[in-house]
Amino acid sequence: MAYVNTNFTKVSESYLFVEVARRIKAYQEKHPEAKIIKMGIGDVTRPIVPAVIEALHKAVDEMGTAAGFRGYGPEQGYAFLRDKIRDFDFKSRGIDIESDEIFVSDGAKSDCGNIGDILGTQNIIAVTDPVYPVYVDTNVMAGRAGDFDGIKYSQIYYMPVTQANGFVPALPDRHVDIIYLCFPNNPTGTTLTTSQLKVWVDYALREKSIILFDAAYEAFITDDDVPHSIFEIEGARQCAIEFRSFSKTAGFTGLRCGYTVVPKELVAYTEDGKPVALNKLWNRRQSTKFNGTAYIVQRAAEAVYSTEGRKQIMENIAYYRENARLMKETFESIGMPAFGGKNSPYVWIKTPLDSWTFFDRLLDECHVVGTPGVGFGPSGESYFRLTAFATHEATREAMERIKQWKL
Amino acid sequence: MAYVNTNFTKVSESYLFVEVARRIKAYQEKHPEAKIIKMGIGDVTRPIVPAVIEALHKAVDEMGTAAGFRGYGPEQGYAFLRDKIRDFDFKSRGIDIESDEIFVSDGAKSDCGNIGDILGTQNIIAVTDPVYPVYVDTNVMAGRAGDFDGIKYSQIYYMPVTQANGFVPALPDRHVDIIYLCFPNNPTGTTLTTSQLKVWVDYALREKSIILFDAAYEAFITDDDVPHSIFEIEGARQCAIEFRSFSKTAGFTGLRCGYTVVPKELVAYTEDGKPVALNKLWNRRQSTKFNGTAYIVQRAAEAVYSTEGRKQIMENIAYYRENARLMKETFESIGMPAFGGKNSPYVWIKTPLDSWTFFDRLLDECHVVGTPGVGFGPSGESYFRLTAFATHEATREAMERIKQWKL
Repeated sequence: MAYVNTNFTKVSESYLFVEVARRIKAYQEKHPEAKIIKMGIGDVTRPIVPAVIEALHKAVDEMGTAAGFRGYGPEQGYAFLRDKIRDFDFKSRGIDIESDEIFVSDGAKSDCGNIGDILGTQNIIAVTDPVYPVYVDTNVMAGRAGDFDGIKYSQIYYMPVTQANGFVPALPDRHVDIIYLCFPNNPTGTTLTTSQLKVWVDYALREKSIILFDAAYEAFITDDDVPHSIFEIEGARQCAIEFRSFSKTAGFTGLRCGYTVVPKELVAYTEDGKPVALNKLWNRRQSTKFNGTAYIVQRAAEAVYSTEGRKQIMENIAYYRENARLMKETFESIGMPAFGGKNSPYVWIKTPLDSWTFFDRLLDECHVVGTPGVGFGPSGESYFRLTAFATHEATREAMERIKQWKL
Repeated sequence: MAYVNTNFTKVSESYLFVEVARRIKAYQEKHPEAKIIKMGIGDVTRPIVPAVIEALHKAVDEMGTAAGFRGYGPEQGYAFLRDKIRDFDFKSRGIDIESDEIFVSDGAKSDCGNIGDILGTQNIIAVTDPVYPVYVDTNVMAGRAGDFDGIKYSQIYYMPVTQANGFVPALPDRHVDIIYLCFPNNPTGTTLTTSQLKVWVDYALREKSIILFDAAYEAFITDDDVPHSIFEIEGARQCAIEFRSFSKTAGFTGLRCGYTVVPKELVAYTEDGKPVALNKLWNRRQSTKFNGTAYIVQRAAEAVYSTEGRKQIMENIAYYRENARLMKETFESIGMPAFGGKNSPYVWIKTPLDSWTFFDRLLDECHVVGTPGVGFGPSGESYFRLTAFATHEATREAMERIKQWKL
């Protein structure tokens, strides 16, 4: 008899986006004339920039010739890309990361999910609340979460990030082994300053914990005191893994490329306290259960670092940022506190209603769609997420409607 | 204190290809004049065919326009590709597989490795010997292998496939839960007929076991009585998962695309015997820990099924097949039994020496490199693997040298 991994049966079904889609559909059927503007989806919309398109065409042509064809590549990524990442994302900021600490992959979601492979199932996990559901669900699947009571898992430590604490999570009041931090944050759009992040590095060093730092939204950072990488903090090489993505940086959501940094100093422990280096283990995991990212996609990622490529992707980021600025300003102008939207494509609104009621009224009265904050966790209740990925025109139109809105 | 997954520390280091590379390098340094022909690597060499290149360029252009841009796609793959797979790889052979039983991925290696996520760690695993190391190593990582004694893992059931049993593994003499079968086989290049595979399906149905069927080399099949899919066998929908790849079929080793078929009837059990459907669990795994394969790569895979694409990839397969035929014939002509090479790009030679001595003498006396069979498992001792992926010219030259060889 083949046995199932019963932990999978404990994963709570997420109806968030399904329910959002259902309500939109029902509304549109009842009100076919309504011009609904969707600002709920966390996916980019601007096309891939010309420098990257050019690199893709060139790499495709190579693959069609005997001399240029590339078969299996290094599972860790080609040196041409890893070296560019090292130089532009780290060395240029004075951060000491070597190419063999960088593992190129098909995206940060895969890596965030797969990193658990190399960690023991007995680790106590801490997540912020609200939270990107992948951190929780992958730990449920691995048997680290305990039982679900309809709101929370019994063995996961939840750290609220709300207006009450300025969206800065408090240190746990007990020991935790693994801490997921995503800053700039999804869904709140808020950030930690260098000194606020240092508190976490110090905790992790003291407790021999590991921080899994998700920096997928790094490209949106404008403030000087917001770290682009956790490795800007002294000591982070001893306690952190960082996930990066080209998805939001360069619109690669449909091209699939990201990378993970595992410093050579980083260790986790056996039950009897023997340290084991995680760089080597992640290398072994990726070599065994992954066969590298497509060559043409790695050439595309390389082009993101060219002079033209950088200029072009920053124009796209600026485009989204202008949307975010306008959205934040609009909600504040009608008396609703709005967070994020500056170093992030997400605007997180504190509503006077519960999240789903706000959703229904915004849809009904403004024909604008967003995502109920409670869908990201209990501390997201009465919050609401809007994304800056619509066009300028759609964003302006939506904000005009909201300015006229009598809630 | 963050804990490591100590199972990772049990993975035996594979020095096979490292040692092969070391010996080649040492030899070449000592004999710089030697024209070494490499026939050890299991990677294709023919460029991507024109129909696929054209589809890639078209998809790249789409990604550069606002109208054609595609962001996050379905984690399971786009319908345009899943439907083509269903029609051409299954329906056309009279096999009843639906599109929502097909999960497109970045390759069969990822899927072979990740499938263990949804299966309990208490399952007893059976593998053929010799074997593709990924099946074993991923189970070591998951804690299903026991301890390594230098040759075998204590909890894995090994099924020899050798000349003695005609490369047809015998049914286990005890119950096993999960059975890995790869046919056409890597490394032996041998196949099972439909009736030989049916024995395994019947066993799995009787024992409520699951067969993980790796059909990565399916495109090389020429014999009529060799099944292209395990789902040609009645009852397989109740007991099998199948892995497929565009790597060997269409030269996608550097483009990364494969797929996995999980029938809706297939279940695994909880400890107390409750059946759980695996299609839904794999869907959940992929939705949570994977974000789909690049759109442009899926368009490339779609083009493999076009009239032109199919014609062009079959020309490449025929090219490799002709190499394999010549290699098999050559070794037989000098009195060494050679297997595979007909429905497979691999030729598996029974040598009169141990695998590594044969390696050294073939390198020294013919300047030809292959892979020592013992590197794939203890039952591979005294065998030797050659691959058909060199050019015609290099293959002919290597075979001429071997014909003159006095071993």
